[in-house]
This record gives sequence, C-alpha cells and structure tokens, in this order.
Amino acid sequence: MPNRQENSGALVAGVDRVHSSRKPSLDPLCRLLSGELERVNQLIVERMQSPVALIPQLAGHIVASGGKRLRPMLTLGCARLCGYGGCRHIALAAAVEFIHTATLLHDDVVDASDLRRGRDTANAVWGNKPPILVGDFLFSRSFELMVADGSLRILEILSRASSVIAEGEVLQLMTANDTRTSEAGYLAVIQAKTAELFAAASRIGAVVAERPQEEEEALDRYGRNLGIAFQLVDDMLDFSAQPSEFGKSIGNDFRDGKVTLPVLLAFARGDEEERAFWRRTIEEQDQRAGDLELAIHLVEGRGALAETLSRARSYAATAIDALSMFRDGIERRALIDAAAFATERGF
Amino acid sequence: MPNRQENSGALVAGVDRVHSSRKPSLDPLCRLLSGELERVNQLIVERMQSPVALIPQLAGHIVASGGKRLRPMLTLGCARLCGYGGCRHIALAAAVEFIHTATLLHDDVVDASDLRRGRDTANAVWGNKPPILVGDFLFSRSFELMVADGSLRILEILSRASSVIAEGEVLQLMTANDTRTSEAGYLAVIQAKTAELFAAASRIGAVVAERPQEEEEALDRYGRNLGIAFQLVDDMLDFSAQPSEFGKSIGNDFRDGKVTLPVLLAFARGDEEERAFWRRTIEEQDQRAGDLELAIHLVEGRGALAETLSRARSYAATAIDALSMFRDGIERRALIDAAAFATERGF
Repeated sequence: MPNRQENSGALVAGVDRVHSSRKPSLDPLCRLLSGELERVNQLIVERMQSPVALIPQLAGHIVASGGKRLRPMLTLGCARLCGYGGCRHIALAAAVEFIHTATLLHDDVVDASDLRRGRDTANAVWGNKPPILVGDFLFSRSFELMVADGSLRILEILSRASSVIAEGEVLQLMTANDTRTSEAGYLAVIQAKTAELFAAASRIGAVVAERPQEEEEALDRYGRNLGIAFQLVDDMLDFSAQPSEFGKSIGNDFRDGKVTLPVLLAFARGDEEERAFWRRTIEEQDQRAGDLELAIHLVEGRGALAETLSRARSYAATAIDALSMFRDGIERRALIDAAAFATERGF
Repeated sequence: MPNRQENSGALVAGVDRVHSSRKPSLDPLCRLLSGELERVNQLIVERMQSPVALIPQLAGHIVASGGKRLRPMLTLGCARLCGYGGCRHIALAAAVEFIHTATLLHDDVVDASDLRRGRDTANAVWGNKPPILVGDFLFSRSFELMVADGSLRILEILSRASSVIAEGEVLQLMTANDTRTSEAGYLAVIQAKTAELFAAASRIGAVVAERPQEEEEALDRYGRNLGIAFQLVDDMLDFSAQPSEFGKSIGNDFRDGKVTLPVLLAFARGDEEERAFWRRTIEEQDQRAGDLELAIHLVEGRGALAETLSRARSYAATAIDALSMFRDGIERRALIDAAAFATERGF
C-alpha cells in the first residue's frame, strides 16, 4: 500500500485553494446572463405546472434544489457569443434543463440515491413511482417547448442527445461492478451520459443564431470537452477526503460499485492486495466499515485523483481552445471562465 | 351480499361467445394493413438497435411479446381511410408504438408487475433499473423518428400526448387506494393514460394525408372513444372469473389498489359490509387469501362488470359514429370492426 501523502500534495493544495473562494469562475457567466436566466427560471416554473398537483410539487422540489443551471447557461451563453439578439434561446435553455432534470429524477431512482446537493432526493421523499412518471412528464414537456420553438434542426440535436444519454446510462449499468472496465469504456459512458447534453446545449446556441456549421461544431466541441471535464471532476470529488460545504455527499459512486476513472487508475496501479480490495468492494459489493476511507486513501495514494484532475484540466483546455474562432469579448471570457471553473470547483 | 349469478348472465354469455372465436374483429384491419404492419415491425427492430447490447435485448423482449400493435394500426388504418398513398405513416406508426412501449416499461416498474401478456415483464427479468433507462431510450427514439419525418404538427400532437399520458399516470397513482375516487376522476385517468395516445395515433393519420381539420377531429374522436372503451374492458377483464387463454393475468389492478370503474360501481352499490371489504382491501391494502375471489363475486353480483361493459360499448359506438363522415369502404369497415372488437375481446 502506498504512503498516504504520496502524489496527493498538489491535489490537496488545489482543493484547498478552491475551498477558500466560493464558485470562483462561474460568476462572470452568471452575471452576464442573470436577466435571461431569470426568464428561464420563470418559464421552467410555468411549464412544470399541471392540474395534477403532485407534478409541480415534485418537479419544484428538484428544480429548486440549488442546481447551477450550467446546461441552460451554456445555451444562453453560446447564443450570446454568436451575437444572437432574439428570445428563442430562453425556451430552448428551459428545454435543455427539463431534459437534465428528467434524467436526474430517473438517475436517483436507478441509483437509489437519498441525497442530491445536500437535500433529500424526490425518491427519498415520494418513493420511486412518482419520480419515474414526473421524469417522463418533464421529458415530454421539454419536447413541447422545442416543438413550440419550431426548429427541426434543434429538435434533431436534442432528441439525438436524449437517446445518447439513455444509452450512456444503460452502458454505465453494464460496466458497474466490473473492474475490468477499460478507460475507453469509462470515457464512452461519460461522453454519452454527461458530455452529449453539454455539447447539444452549447451547439444549439449557434443554431438559434443561424451561424455557420463550423461555429456549431466549435461550440459542440466546447460543450463536449467541458462536459467530460465536469464529469471527471465529479467522479474525483466522490472520493474527496473533505466533504464539501455545498452538500455534495461523498462515496456514492463507490457504494454503487461504479467504476470511475479514479477507481480504474487505482486498480491499474495497485498491488495484488489493493486489487483484491477493489474486487471485493466494487465487484462483489462486499463493503464494510472503513472501506470508503481506505478507498479514498488508495485513490489518493496511487495518484489517481491527481491524475483524474489533470485529465479534466486537459479536457477543459481543449474546450477553451474550441472557442478560439470567436471574437474576444465579455461572452467568450465568461465561457472560458466557466470551463476553468469546471476543474476548480469544490462541489 | 348479492347472489353470485345476479346481473351477470348476459356478461358471461358475451364472454363465452368471444372465447369461442379468436380475436374476431381485429382481423379485417390486420389483413388490410399486413404489408404495412410488417414494415412497421421491421422499422421498430431497426430503430431499437444500439451498440449497448442490453437495449435491443430488453426492447426486443417487450416488442416481441405479442402486443396487438393496436396503436400503430390506428395510424396506418386512419391514414389509409384518408386516402394516403405515401410511406411516411410507417415511421409515424413506429414512433407511436415506441411511445407506448416506453410507457409499458415504466408502468411495469411502477406497478411492480411480474407478468405482461403471460410473459415475464422486463423488470421481472432484469430488475427495475434497465427498464427505466431503456424506456427513456425508446421514448427518445420515438422523437428521433418524428423529427426525421419532419412534421412539426405531428411532433406537436405526439409530444402533447406524451405529457398527458404522464399526467394520467401520476393522477392514477394519486387516486390509487382511494375508494372516494369519483367516476369523473377515474375517467380523467383513463382519458389521459390510455385514450390520449389512441386519439393522437388516429389523428396523425389525417395529418399525414393532409386532410382538413374536421377529419383530424373526427379521427381524434374515434381514437379517443375507442381508447376509453378499450381501457374499460381492460379494467373489467382484471376481474374476469375465467383467466384468459391469452395469458392476461387477473387481479393485478385489485392487488395494486387501483380504483377502476368496476370497483367504483361495486363500492357505490354495495352495502356497509361490502364497503368495509373494499376499504380494507383497496384503501388499507390488507389483502388475504380468497379476497380476489370475493372481489370478483362482488363486482359480478353488483352488476359492476356488466355496467362497465355496457359503458364500454357506448364509447365504442361513439367511436364508430365518428367515422360517419368518411366514405364507406374496406378501410372504414375495418376500423369499425376494430372498435367493436375492443368491447368483445376476451383478452
């Protein structure tokens, strides 16, 4: 077993730095879009209404649960970057958030999660049945919003993204508990379940602004790489030794037997004793008191967290490079900051 | 308590008649559409493919499980009735079936059903997680098919129908176990969860044929009333004393505490002792050996099954009347037969 301090100094320093200033680099984008984001939030509340009282009640629970609205911000921010001056991006950003919310509701049922962002999940409050059905409702509402917008191109992008997300979720189920999962397999999962919607949310900013194909593709690349970076950091933070002040609980992926990059790397770099530990806890799901702490010790000690963060930074850098074809200005700088934020966030 | 034979003679005779000839009146529509239905089935198999092997495996399990393809047949049949000669209705019929299949997968998880059409449900085979996610996949695929078709009007009709279906499912959850549910409340549930998709599936037949608004509306009325009749019979058959040879198991709704029309009527017509029985079994979910048999005895004895069937026939007649504006011919006769079939089917 490795010494606990080995390889983890830089990471810990980085994490400490992040913890000292709250949400540092998403602020410019939030400020830039605050008015529009307010309209998106109003539309979300308006369009989750239903004569069936449980629907707005349950949807309101998750919608109001302190999400960062990162995906709709990508749509709004990318539309602004492309010089869009209309108001169609408001409804499209709401549609993107509805897709995301629907997948969160279903994910929490599938993972039997009790907490999300420090609050009870919908399934913890109402049981599994309502969140499955309300997820379906929000997903349908998302398409109603897109249909009302009227762009078949955008419908194509977002219906495709929805299929890919579902494929990614099923793929994740199939790789769970399997320490033989390859890095390529893991990347395929996070590309599909997370990065695809980031890519689509960004791309439609160019579509709504009627920009040429190459700008669409650049924004797709921006969103996709940002999404991968975001998910890598999310997977890393699941093993964060220091539970975040923002209510993100740790050890959920470990408990579910998800084979994320930190686990893959720690397994690959581990000795026989360590591999036996991962097989027991992840494959056989035989987890005992102290196992999470030992897992954290191993991913830290084998440099798996630092390596995961380093890869995340590389994806974030690629995301930022994808913006190079756009003119410099407040919008581009805010989107660059958002990408940097993804790898420095402490929650 | 009523005598077991009272009021149920006509019903039993009707059920016996149906049991003697298999699927009598859907045949004309099946024959009329057999070539097109084959193409729909091919497209369904083609479009449920995915590099994620579990998806076609699980989707194939439910798609191949002997469903009647009633909803896609409505789209095909109504398009033909409207004189449509193109081939867009094939993909639209597949899209309709995908929406239906997605809701079946989610319903079976929500209801914790083990059997559907005499076979193990997907959740019985794979657990709850994959059917939730594969349902989401099929739902997304349905929208991809519609987007490829390119009609915003059809996307509007089917995305709206999907929202209404989800609302109906949530409403059903909220009225479960409540014997104070009104008939209006029950009708609202089945209008939303079942009839809305029948209506939409039929209506788009007129849309694809570019027929005037009044024909769209007539077909919507046809499908909607047929859907209500279909669901009433389904609810009646859950209390069928004679388990069907077609593998439909009985007592599922009773076990789930669903307050369907047979229960509503038997409760309303029952004496205090009977109401206490319904409150115990449906509201308190305290069910013991012999309770299903007693429930069947009560719904039969109080004439609740016969009354449910009689109402179903009235909705079927309204469905048939809605076709009066279309010219007589093989298509109209087949659709009339399909509506009659809905109330005479023994499975």
